[in-house]
Amino acid sequence: MKKSRNKRPVKPLNKSSRKAGMAPGTLLYTGNNNNAEVKISLFSYKGEFFEETLIENSDNLQGLLNSPHISWLTVDGIHKVELIEKIGKNFSIHPLILEDITHNIQRPKFEDYDNNLYFVMRIFNYDETSMQLSNEQISFVLGSNYILTFCETPCSVFDNVKDRLRKGAQKIRNSNSDYLAYALIDAVVDSYFIILEKIGTDIEELEDGIVVNPTKEDIQNLHRLRRELILMRKSIWPLREILNNLLHEVNGIFSKETMVYLRDVYDHSIQIIDTIESYRDMVIGMLDVYLSSLSNKMNQVMKVLTIISTIFIPLTFLAGVYGMNFVHFPEIQMTWMYPWGFWGFSLLLIGFMLFLFKRKNWL
Amino acid sequence: MKKSRNKRPVKPLNKSSRKAGMAPGTLLYTGNNNNAEVKISLFSYKGEFFEETLIENSDNLQGLLNSPHISWLTVDGIHKVELIEKIGKNFSIHPLILEDITHNIQRPKFEDYDNNLYFVMRIFNYDETSMQLSNEQISFVLGSNYILTFCETPCSVFDNVKDRLRKGAQKIRNSNSDYLAYALIDAVVDSYFIILEKIGTDIEELEDGIVVNPTKEDIQNLHRLRRELILMRKSIWPLREILNNLLHEVNGIFSKETMVYLRDVYDHSIQIIDTIESYRDMVIGMLDVYLSSLSNKMNQVMKVLTIISTIFIPLTFLAGVYGMNFVHFPEIQMTWMYPWGFWGFSLLLIGFMLFLFKRKNWL
Amino acid sequence: MKKSRNKRPVKPLNKSSRKAGMAPGTLLYTGNNNNAEVKISLFSYKGEFFEETLIENSDNLQGLLNSPHISWLTVDGIHKVELIEKIGKNFSIHPLILEDITHNIQRPKFEDYDNNLYFVMRIFNYDETSMQLSNEQISFVLGSNYILTFCETPCSVFDNVKDRLRKGAQKIRNSNSDYLAYALIDAVVDSYFIILEKIGTDIEELEDGIVVNPTKEDIQNLHRLRRELILMRKSIWPLREILNNLLHEVNGIFSKETMVYLRDVYDHSIQIIDTIESYRDMVIGMLDVYLSSLSNKMNQVMKVLTIISTIFIPLTFLAGVYGMNFVHFPEIQMTWMYPWGFWGFSLLLIGFMLFLFKRKNWL
Amino acid sequence: MKKSRNKRPVKPLNKSSRKAGMAPGTLLYTGNNNNAEVKISLFSYKGEFFEETLIENSDNLQGLLNSPHISWLTVDGIHKVELIEKIGKNFSIHPLILEDITHNIQRPKFEDYDNNLYFVMRIFNYDETSMQLSNEQISFVLGSNYILTFCETPCSVFDNVKDRLRKGAQKIRNSNSDYLAYALIDAVVDSYFIILEKIGTDIEELEDGIVVNPTKEDIQNLHRLRRELILMRKSIWPLREILNNLLHEVNGIFSKETMVYLRDVYDHSIQIIDTIESYRDMVIGMLDVYLSSLSNKMNQVMKVLTIISTIFIPLTFLAGVYGMNFVHFPEIQMTWMYPWGFWGFSLLLIGFMLFLFKRKNWL
Amino acid sequence: MKKSRNKRPVKPLNKSSRKAGMAPGTLLYTGNNNNAEVKISLFSYKGEFFEETLIENSDNLQGLLNSPHISWLTVDGIHKVELIEKIGKNFSIHPLILEDITHNIQRPKFEDYDNNLYFVMRIFNYDETSMQLSNEQISFVLGSNYILTFCETPCSVFDNVKDRLRKGAQKIRNSNSDYLAYALIDAVVDSYFIILEKIGTDIEELEDGIVVNPTKEDIQNLHRLRRELILMRKSIWPLREILNNLLHEVNGIFSKETMVYLRDVYDHSIQIIDTIESYRDMVIGMLDVYLSSLSNKMNQVMKVLTIISTIFIPLTFLAGVYGMNFVHFPEIQMTWMYPWGFWGFSLLLIGFMLFLFKRKNWL
Repeated sequence: MKKSRNKRPVKPLNKSSRKAGMAPGTLLYTGNNNNAEVKISLFSYKGEFFEETLIENSDNLQGLLNSPHISWLTVDGIHKVELIEKIGKNFSIHPLILEDITHNIQRPKFEDYDNNLYFVMRIFNYDETSMQLSNEQISFVLGSNYILTFCETPCSVFDNVKDRLRKGAQKIRNSNSDYLAYALIDAVVDSYFIILEKIGTDIEELEDGIVVNPTKEDIQNLHRLRRELILMRKSIWPLREILNNLLHEVNGIFSKETMVYLRDVYDHSIQIIDTIESYRDMVIGMLDVYLSSLSNKMNQVMKVLTIISTIFIPLTFLAGVYGMNFVHFPEIQMTWMYPWGFWGFSLLLIGFMLFLFKRKNWL
Repeated sequence: MKKSRNKRPVKPLNKSSRKAGMAPGTLLYTGNNNNAEVKISLFSYKGEFFEETLIENSDNLQGLLNSPHISWLTVDGIHKVELIEKIGKNFSIHPLILEDITHNIQRPKFEDYDNNLYFVMRIFNYDETSMQLSNEQISFVLGSNYILTFCETPCSVFDNVKDRLRKGAQKIRNSNSDYLAYALIDAVVDSYFIILEKIGTDIEELEDGIVVNPTKEDIQNLHRLRRELILMRKSIWPLREILNNLLHEVNGIFSKETMVYLRDVYDHSIQIIDTIESYRDMVIGMLDVYLSSLSNKMNQVMKVLTIISTIFIPLTFLAGVYGMNFVHFPEIQMTWMYPWGFWGFSLLLIGFMLFLFKRKNWL
Repeated sequence: MKKSRNKRPVKPLNKSSRKAGMAPGTLLYTGNNNNAEVKISLFSYKGEFFEETLIENSDNLQGLLNSPHISWLTVDGIHKVELIEKIGKNFSIHPLILEDITHNIQRPKFEDYDNNLYFVMRIFNYDETSMQLSNEQISFVLGSNYILTFCETPCSVFDNVKDRLRKGAQKIRNSNSDYLAYALIDAVVDSYFIILEKIGTDIEELEDGIVVNPTKEDIQNLHRLRRELILMRKSIWPLREILNNLLHEVNGIFSKETMVYLRDVYDHSIQIIDTIESYRDMVIGMLDVYLSSLSNKMNQVMKVLTIISTIFIPLTFLAGVYGMNFVHFPEIQMTWMYPWGFWGFSLLLIGFMLFLFKRKNWL
Repeated sequence: MKKSRNKRPVKPLNKSSRKAGMAPGTLLYTGNNNNAEVKISLFSYKGEFFEETLIENSDNLQGLLNSPHISWLTVDGIHKVELIEKIGKNFSIHPLILEDITHNIQRPKFEDYDNNLYFVMRIFNYDETSMQLSNEQISFVLGSNYILTFCETPCSVFDNVKDRLRKGAQKIRNSNSDYLAYALIDAVVDSYFIILEKIGTDIEELEDGIVVNPTKEDIQNLHRLRRELILMRKSIWPLREILNNLLHEVNGIFSKETMVYLRDVYDHSIQIIDTIESYRDMVIGMLDVYLSSLSNKMNQVMKVLTIISTIFIPLTFLAGVYGMNFVHFPEIQMTWMYPWGFWGFSLLLIGFMLFLFKRKNWL
Repeated sequence: MKKSRNKRPVKPLNKSSRKAGMAPGTLLYTGNNNNAEVKISLFSYKGEFFEETLIENSDNLQGLLNSPHISWLTVDGIHKVELIEKIGKNFSIHPLILEDITHNIQRPKFEDYDNNLYFVMRIFNYDETSMQLSNEQISFVLGSNYILTFCETPCSVFDNVKDRLRKGAQKIRNSNSDYLAYALIDAVVDSYFIILEKIGTDIEELEDGIVVNPTKEDIQNLHRLRRELILMRKSIWPLREILNNLLHEVNGIFSKETMVYLRDVYDHSIQIIDTIESYRDMVIGMLDVYLSSLSNKMNQVMKVLTIISTIFIPLTFLAGVYGMNFVHFPEIQMTWMYPWGFWGFSLLLIGFMLFLFKRKNWL
C-alpha cells in the first residue's frame, strides 16, 4: 500500500442542501463536472440492423418511441439541465424523474411510472493516480422499445456492451430492450467485483503489515477501508431491492426469459453484499489485531525499561554506598572488598536478576 | 471546530414527567418558550385567488371548513393552550390531538381520525452562536381543504413554501391541500439534509485532527456528534413509518398524483436514515482511530523514556563505580583509565544501544 | 450523584427456583414482603354513583359480577395466597392467572381467557434513601364491568386515578371499565417517564464528571445505569406487545372510543423504549469517553515522568562523572570547569530538552 | 466463587463427526456414558388406576398402543442402540427419530410425523464437585395415549412429576397424555430457572470482586460465564419454536385446555431467553468495568512511580553535584551550605512537588 | 497449535473480475486447477442393477435422459469448459447454469428451471500439510432420473455414498434420484461437522494458551479462526435457503418420503450455523480475555519496575547525600552514623516500603 495515498479519498458528504426549499421538479445539477461537454449517442438496432449516431440536436427524438428498432440513447453528462429537460419532453418523462437524474446524490432506487420504468444505480471509480474511490450516479429510463442512460462522466462501464452491439452478438441484437437493460445492469454489477477485488487486495496487504509491525499509517488505512466499505454498502444495499422490484415488475417490459438472467444478476448482487459484510468483519477483526499489537509493543518497551532499571538501579545504589565519605567506614579499607565484595556481589545480583527474568519469560 | 462549543448541546431529557398523573386530554405545554407572542397566519388560495391574513381573533374559523379555497393556518407558538383549544374546537379536533400538539416531546407519529389526519415531525436548529443542536416539534392537522401547522417557535422552515404560494407557483396554487401537505413535509425533510451536511463537515474536520494529534476536545466532540446522531435517528426513524402510512392512507385525502411526490419524500427519508447510520459507523470508526492514536502516543512517550533510561542508567552506574572511595582501588591510579577506560567504554555502550534501538525501529 | 449510593441496587435475580417442580396452579408467593398487611379497597361507580369501601371479608364478592356499577377492586399485597384464592373463586379466575398473580417475577404479558383479560405490568420505585431502583409487579384482571388490580406493596401509582374518581371527573365516571383500565395503564406508563427522567439527569451529571476527572465511582455508576436500563428494557419491552394485543383484542371489552386512547398509550410505550435505547447508546458512548479519559490521564502521568527523567538522568550522569576519583583527571583541576563546563552545559541541555518537549507538544 | 473451579467446564464441541458419511437411519451413540446400565420404567395410569413397572424385556410393548390407560415409558440411557431400536419397532417410530434419539448432540427441535410427535430438549446439570455445567439431551415421542422419554443419564428432572403421579394428583391422573407432556416440559423449563439463578448469583459475586480488586481469575470466570450463557442460549433459543409448534400443532393431540398451560410454559421460555440476554449484557458490561479497573490500577501504579521519581531524581542530581571533586568548587567550603543550601532547598523542592501533585489530584 | 501454521490460509478474494464485461453465458474457468485431468464417472443403478463406468467420450449421453435406471454422472474438474459445454448440450442445461458451474466463486444458491433443478454448495478442505482451510464449489444438476455433480478437484466427500451404492445398500438402490440427491447433500453437510470440530479443538487449545501466557501468535491464530468462521458462515448461511427451497420445491422431483430426510439435513444446517455463531461469540470473548491478559501482564511489569524504583531511588539519594564533599559536614565524622544512621535507616525504609506494597497487594 503506497503511503502517498490520500487519507480522505471518500467524500460521502451530502451536497443536496443546495436544493433545499426548491419546488419539486426543479432541475438542478448538484455535482462538480460543470464544464465537460455532453455527448449523446444513439444506438439503434434490431437483428441485422445496427446504427450508431452521435446526436447533436436533441429536439426531435419522439420518433424513437414508435421506431421498430430498439433505441439506446446514452447521455454522458447531466450538468446541462436544459438538455435533460428536452430529452424528457421527447420521451414524456415525469418531472420527478428528470429532477432525480440531475440531482446526482440519489440513493439507488426503482420507480415504475405508467409508461416507463426508472431506476438509479451508482458506479465506483478507483482513481489510480489520486488513489481515491469516487462514485457517480447512472440513471436508467426503460420503455418497451428504448432505454435512456444518463452518466455524470463518460461511462466507460458500458464499453463492453457497446462492443457486443457493434460486433453483432446474436443474443443481444435479437432481443428486446429488456435484455439490453439486463446487459447494462450486469455490466454495472460486474464493475463492483473489480472494486471489491482491489479492496480485498488492500486488506491482505494491510493484514501482513499489522501483524509484523503496526504503524500509524495502518490505522489510517484501516479507517479508509472501513469508510469505503460503508460507502459501498450504502450504495449497493438498495440494489437488491431494485432487482427484486424488476423481477416482480408487472408492466410486462421484462420477458420471462430475461427474468432468468435478471435472477442471475440478483444473485450476484447478494454475493457482493455478502462480500462487503465479510470484508467489514475482517477490517474490524484487523482493528483488534492492531490494538493488541500496539499493546504487545508497549509491553516489549516496558520490559526493556524494567530489565535495565531493575538491574542497574540497585547496583548504582551499591556504588553510591561505597562512594560515601564517612570517616568511620571500615569496608573501604579492606583490600578484597573492591574486587570480591563489590564486583562479586554485583555480578551475583545481575545473574540472579537475569535468572528471574528468564523464569518470568521476559527475555 | 471551535473549542468554545458547548459540551452538552443536546438535551434529549424527557420533561414529560410534569404531566404524569394528569387526566388524558389535559392540555399542558411542557417546553420553555413561555413568553414569546403567538402569531397565527392564514393562507387562503385556489388558482388565481390568494389571501394572506394575520389572525388576531381565532374564535370564528369554522367557515374555513366549508370554504371553496384551500386554507393553511400556521400557528407559531404552542404555549398558549387556550388558543390551541379554541382552534381545536373550530376544526373539531380530537382532544388527544390537542394534547399531543402542546405536549412538545412527541415522538414523530401518524394518526388518522375520522375527519382529519394528524402527524408530528421534529425539526432541528443548529444555533451558530451557542453551537447547539436543538430540536422542536411541528404538528400537522390535515383535512380535505385545510392544513393546520403548529410550531413551537416561528418556523422558518416553511418560508420557501410561503414564498412559492405568494409568487403564485402554478403547481401549488392549482393543487389541493394534499399537495401543500407534501410541500410542507418536503420542506422539513430538506432541512434535515442541511443539518446532516453540517454534521458531515464536523466529522471530516475531526477526522483530520484525530489522526494528526488527538486531544481531549476531540473525544468530547466525537461524543457530542454521537449524541446528536442518536437524537436525530430517534427523531427521524419514525418518519419512514409516517410517510408509509400517508402512502397507504385510505381516507382519500391524498390524490394518486400527489402520492408520486410523497414516494419521492419517502425515498429521501430513507436516504437520510442511511446517511445517519453511515455517519454513526464513521464516528464509531473514528473512536477506534482515536484510541489507537492515544496508544501510539503513549508508545512514543514510553520509547523516549526507555531510550534515555537504558542509555544513561548503566553509565551512571559506571560513574558511580569510579566514584567509590575504596583504598585498594587499582583502576583509579591508571593514567589511561579515565579517557579510554571510562569515556571509551561509555561511547561504545551508547553506540551499541543506539544500534540496538535502530534495529528495533525505535528511532 | 451522591457517593454513598449503593453499588448493586438492582437485583434481577430470579427467585422462581423455589417454585420449580410444583404442580401448575400452585399458589406460592416468591417475594419478600411477607409481613405487611393486605388492604383491599373497592371502588364502585357509574355516573353520579360513587362508593369507596374497604373490604375486610372477601368471601362474598360474586355480586359485583352482576352489579350495574363498574367495580374496581384493588389489592395491596399478594403474599396472602388464601386471600388471592378466595378472590379468584369469586370472579372465577383461571388457576394459572392466580398462580401468575402471586408469582411476583412475571415478565409483562397479556392473556385472554373466556370471561376476562389478564395482563401483568411492572412498576419501578426509586428509593431516595437507599438510592435503589426496585421494581414490582402489578396484575390486572379485566372483565366487562370490573377490574381487579394486585400490587405487591400499596401501589401509589394509582393515587391520581383514585383522586379523579373521587372528584367525579366526567370522562372516567361516565365510561366503562375499559376506560378505567386505560387510565390505570396510562398511570403506570406515566410513572416510567419519571424514572427515565431521573436516569437522564444521572446521565447528564455523570457526563460532566467523566470528561473533567474520571474516577472509579464513575465507572461503577455507569455500570449501575447500564444495569438499570437493561432491567427497564426487559420489563418495558413486552409492554408494546401487551398494548398491541389490547388494541386487537376481540372480546369486545374495549370500545372503539377507548381504543383511540389506548393507541396513545401505545405511542408512549414506543417512545419510552426509544428513550431507553438512546440512553443505552449514550451510556455505552460515555464508557468510551471514560476509557479514553483514563488513557489520556495515563499519558499525562507518563509525560511528567518522562520529562523529569529525561532531563535529570543525563545530568545525574554528568555529576557522577565529575564525582569520580581518578588520579589522572585533568578537568577537575580547571578553574572554569565547574561554573561553565558543568552548569553551563547542564543549562544548555535542560534548555534543549525543554525545546524538544515544547515542539512535541508535551508541555 | 471458589478458585478451584475448572476453567473450561463447558464443552460444546461437536462430536458428530464420528457419524459423518454413515447412511441415514444408522443408530450410533456419540456420547460417553457407554457403561451405565439402562433402566426402563413404565407408568400406566388413568384416573384411579396407577401402575409403575420396571421393564426388563422390551420386546412386547405394542399392547400399550391400544391400552385404555396412559402409558409413560421412560428410558434412562441411550447408549444401547439395540434397545432403542426394539422400542422403536414396538411403537413404529420413524428411523430418523431413532437416529436422533441416540445421536446426543441434537439441537432442540420439533417434528411431527403421521402417528406421533417428536421433540428434543436439552437439560443442564451443574456438578457441584467439578463445578462444571454439563448438558444432555432429552427426547420425547408423544402419541395420543403414550409418551416415551429418553434421557442420557437417569433424568432426575422428572422426579417431581413421578411423585405427583404416584401421589395421585387429580389433575394429572385425570388428564390425557398431552397434559403429562406439558408437565414434563414444564419440569424441564423449571430446571432452567435453577441454573439461571446459580449463574445470577455468580454474576453478583463477580461484580463485587471486579470493582474492589480485579484479578486474573475474574476475567476467566467472566469468560466462563459468557461461555455458559452462549451454550444455554444455543440450547434454549430453539425451545420457543418448539413450543410455538406445539401450540399450533394440528394433529389434535393437544386439547384446547392443555394449550392454555402450554402457553404458560411458552411465556416462561421467553422469560428465560430474556434473562439470558440480560445476563449476557451484564457480563459484557462487567468486562468493560474490569478493563477500566485494570486501567485504573495501572494509573495508580504509574502515579506512585512518577511521584517517587519526580521527587527523588532531581534531589539525587543535587547530591551528585555536591559530590563532585572539582578543585575550584566554592560552595563546598561555605559553612551554611550543607544545612541550608542543600537540605533547605531539598525540602523546599519536595514541598513544592507535593503541592503540585496535590493540585493535580494525584495524592 | 503448531506455530508453523500459515498466517493467511483463507483467501476469500474474489477473482471474478476476470469475467467482468463478458457476455452472459460465456464459460470461463476462474480457478487455478488448470492442469489436472478431468475424470468423469457414471453410476447407473436401479434396485439390483448397478454399473460404474468411466466416461471417456462425453458426446452421446442423451440416452441417459430416457434410461430406466438412475444415472449419476460425476465430473471431477471444471476447468475444461468444452467438456462442460458438451455435457450441457446432452442434458439440455441452460447456458447460465453452465456458466455458474465453471465460474468457481458462486455463492451457494438454488435455481429451478423447467426441466431440472440446479444448486451449488461449497465444501471445505483442511490441508494438514499447509494447515490451510481451502474451499471449493460443488454444483448439482438434478433431473427426474439423473444427477450431475461437478467438483473442482476429485471430490472425496462423495466416497461414502459411492461405497454405499457399490455395496448395494437397500434404501439408496431402491430409491429415486431425489434420495441420491439427499444422500449427496447429507454427505456435504456432514463434512462441515468435521471442519467445525477441528475449529472447536483449535479454540479450546487457544483458550488454554491465552489465559496462561498470551503471545503474539495467539492473536494471529484468533484472527485466523475468525476469518475462517467468517468464510464458513458466508458459505453455509445460504444453505438454509437452498434446503428450504428444496423442501418447497414444486416440480415434484422430491417425493414426500425424501422430504422427511431433507428436513433432517435442514435441521443439521441450522445446527451448523448455530455452532458457527457460538464459535464466533467465543472467539470474540477470547479476544477480550487476550486483551485483558495483556493489560494484566503490563500491570505486572509496571509493578516490578515501581517496586524496585520506589525502594532504591530514595536510598540512592541518601547514599548520594553522604557522598557529598562539603567541608562542614558534621554527620560524616560521627562513628555510629554509617552503621546505624545509614544502614539502619535504609533497612527501616525498605521494610516500610515492603509493608506498604504488601498492603496494596502488589507483592
